[in-house]
Amino acid sequence: MFESAEIDHVLTKDAYEHAEAELREALLAAQLALREQGKQAVLVVIAGVDAAGKGETVQLINTWLDPRRVHTFAFDAPTDEERDRPPLWRYWRALPPKGEVGIFFDSWYNAPLQAFVDGTIDAAEFDRAIERATRFERMLANEGFVLLKLWFHISKKEQRRRFRELEKHKATRWRVTAKDWRNFEAYDRSIAAASRAVRESSTDFAPWIVVPGLDERYRAVTVGRALLDALCNDDVPAQPAETAVHPVAAVDEHNVLRALDLAGSKLDEADYERELELWQGRLAKCVRRAKFRKRSLVVVFEGVDAAGKGGAIRRVTAPIDPRHYNVVATAAPTDEERARPYLWRFWRHLPRLGKLVIFDRSWYGRVLVERVEGFCSTSDWMRGYSEINDFEEQMVEHGAIVVKLWLQIDMDEQLRRFEDRQTAAIKRHKIGPDDWRNREKSSRYEQAVTDMIDRTSTEMAPWTLVEANDKNFARVKVLRTICERLEAAL
Amino acid sequence: MFESAEIDHVLTKDAYEHAEAELREALLAAQLALREQGKQAVLVVIAGVDAAGKGETVQLINTWLDPRRVHTFAFDAPTDEERDRPPLWRYWRALPPKGEVGIFFDSWYNAPLQAFVDGTIDAAEFDRAIERATRFERMLANEGFVLLKLWFHISKKEQRRRFRELEKHKATRWRVTAKDWRNFEAYDRSIAAASRAVRESSTDFAPWIVVPGLDERYRAVTVGRALLDALCNDDVPAQPAETAVHPVAAVDEHNVLRALDLAGSKLDEADYERELELWQGRLAKCVRRAKFRKRSLVVVFEGVDAAGKGGAIRRVTAPIDPRHYNVVATAAPTDEERARPYLWRFWRHLPRLGKLVIFDRSWYGRVLVERVEGFCSTSDWMRGYSEINDFEEQMVEHGAIVVKLWLQIDMDEQLRRFEDRQTAAIKRHKIGPDDWRNREKSSRYEQAVTDMIDRTSTEMAPWTLVEANDKNFARVKVLRTICERLEAAL
Repeated sequence: MFESAEIDHVLTKDAYEHAEAELREALLAAQLALREQGKQAVLVVIAGVDAAGKGETVQLINTWLDPRRVHTFAFDAPTDEERDRPPLWRYWRALPPKGEVGIFFDSWYNAPLQAFVDGTIDAAEFDRAIERATRFERMLANEGFVLLKLWFHISKKEQRRRFRELEKHKATRWRVTAKDWRNFEAYDRSIAAASRAVRESSTDFAPWIVVPGLDERYRAVTVGRALLDALCNDDVPAQPAETAVHPVAAVDEHNVLRALDLAGSKLDEADYERELELWQGRLAKCVRRAKFRKRSLVVVFEGVDAAGKGGAIRRVTAPIDPRHYNVVATAAPTDEERARPYLWRFWRHLPRLGKLVIFDRSWYGRVLVERVEGFCSTSDWMRGYSEINDFEEQMVEHGAIVVKLWLQIDMDEQLRRFEDRQTAAIKRHKIGPDDWRNREKSSRYEQAVTDMIDRTSTEMAPWTLVEANDKNFARVKVLRTICERLEAAL
Repeated sequence: MFESAEIDHVLTKDAYEHAEAELREALLAAQLALREQGKQAVLVVIAGVDAAGKGETVQLINTWLDPRRVHTFAFDAPTDEERDRPPLWRYWRALPPKGEVGIFFDSWYNAPLQAFVDGTIDAAEFDRAIERATRFERMLANEGFVLLKLWFHISKKEQRRRFRELEKHKATRWRVTAKDWRNFEAYDRSIAAASRAVRESSTDFAPWIVVPGLDERYRAVTVGRALLDALCNDDVPAQPAETAVHPVAAVDEHNVLRALDLAGSKLDEADYERELELWQGRLAKCVRRAKFRKRSLVVVFEGVDAAGKGGAIRRVTAPIDPRHYNVVATAAPTDEERARPYLWRFWRHLPRLGKLVIFDRSWYGRVLVERVEGFCSTSDWMRGYSEINDFEEQMVEHGAIVVKLWLQIDMDEQLRRFEDRQTAAIKRHKIGPDDWRNREKSSRYEQAVTDMIDRTSTEMAPWTLVEANDKNFARVKVLRTICERLEAAL
């Protein structure tokens, strides 16, 4: 994997100065064009052997480009806010908006590489981590990111020479630590792991570029050219070829929604009051349990228009200390959100440990309204299913309990509620022309919902369908579902 | 101060239910109107005696209002990201956007109250903290916030009774801690401090409402009515009466800018190379010093158009590890920024300890371009001076070194550079019709700049004027200024 990088590539001073002058001008122009088009972001991922010139190169890139549009992040020990979320959260929050350049010093490869070399994970786990990284990168590529992954390499001999050189001088001695020497001892194992990672995560959408670290000038020009290519990339965004295979509608009239007993699922007032109190009490108790401080709760509310999401949410929040929950109403994205990948607007709201967040509509918009209304391409919503499953898997693995509720009412009940909303002054804001239009597309929505359930109801984050013609019944079922999931998990 | 709150206010169950039903409907309607108008945010600040019903009341507010537009924050122990910034940073980041409601459980009053009661600060320091809180609130009020500050009160006797009651039952015992009893011992001193705080910070724009905590129903209706008033407030925004006294122009032709020796401030190429290397080396050394890990550096670049800010910034960043700095180019605000007070967009970029941030244009836009172009009202930019001084004072007190640089060129030099920009392809994006228009307003800008320097050049964050007709001279002076400030501080 790194053979070519150990060849003695050398560039003369003259050749370098000539190449650099050209590069500088071209890079600045390309950066400006990137910004003016505003369709892509460039993310430079820096990895590789210590003392191979990573820091120097990043500094060089910052002098070549306009530093006002370059954002460099070093991911040292996570902060406590970061530790309380899934590992990728810190990278998500640092993603640059379209039109700009991000440089990630260390990345999602670091932790698995270190763990594999230390022997705390085995090859299968390592491969799984790399596969995950690849899925994350595929999503980024599909969302308009140009990924430039640079792997800096020098030979073991050269590394030792550099460490010793640095140790000789008072001014640079601090740069070589005991940990560096320990890593040096593990050089061969590290290279084996790195080789495996580079091989498995070199994809068509995000290949690794191995940078020979030996000669400073050769290294600089190699990086400069690769960066120029990345900045000039104009396959915007690199859309996968559309597949002809789409989810197919059931051939008969049966589906999971129609199988619900909407008419029969009722609760009279007295039972409702009793059950409400019971489940609200249990819920309040759950989130106060000491064990919950190491977990978090994410509740997703989706449902047909006027199914009663708002009322159900209020019954869930009522018994809980408001310091512990947050309700996120998914609305039109802000311009900061539009400049970043679709899921960014949800990642930013993930709760800390010990807290809960309720999403009133959610990332499922991608495979529901955006699909049906054509707000995104077919491949966008088709890839949405697996991106969503990845997202939820990360939450669950980090300790979140993910409860997803679909509130279903039938067409007659919806009509009754729409008409009611139009007459009651206080409810009039809840109904608009969009609602009537969506109603006409109900069969297309139904198809989208059943596909969504089939593809995203996973063992770790299952969907619960809630019969919501009767509000009492629906509210109690919502509360009971959340409680039971919590109690099972704690 | 709290005498009325100890009277036995009681509300019958009937009276309560009647009042509550009315309130609920009115509150929801008012919340909706707040949102639709989108001109104000309501911030509810919760403070007062323990066990007086603060938690219960916040929970109640959340059931009355649509919880999807209410954001409740408890400010417990600060996170490490918060500790690395000035104390108000955590409140700034939690400010709700216009149209929404924020509830701050604990606030900027907590720390000074606790410290005063504990005896770690004296009365003068306490008053100063309260005065500061007031200035912060005045800014919020001017920026479209309706502040509802609720002080919950019960008598010492009642507090003891409640603590004992809570301790009796297994389910509530955990709510009373040793710290609560310690605070109980200090009840009288706490009330004296609170009384002083409430008196001094009850202003026309943010008065305290003292809520009697004894009767649950009376308390609820008191808060409900106050909240309704806050939501319905339509003095948007409460602009202070305009003063007739404005900064006056110098009566002669002298001013600090014209006093600069622009023509004589030069550096030849050889001297430049030598000095550049010298100061870049010293700068790199400074930010690597162990002492800098407890400090931060904020550099503000302002200047006339084409004065060479970008080039100077690149000379400053070149010697520094990109992991330690960030350059913020101030551009048109995003919609998330526009929905919040003016300074929010800058607070969010404040560096952690050990880091530095360079602002390419800054909060001084308020008293420069916004003033001259009329983008804000006279009272907006007039109050800008003291808001800016407060902002910088907070940074400095938290350990930041604030360096402010004004780059000045004369009209002839500017014309030369404009023409140069129009001909060079790579520079053409740097010049537009705005630049030519601004040039025609140069005397008004000059007035704004001299006022800015007079009013915001403080001993802790002084302005440095940089003669920038000669780029070499300017770049070295910029580097030297930053170095000398750093070296003096470390």
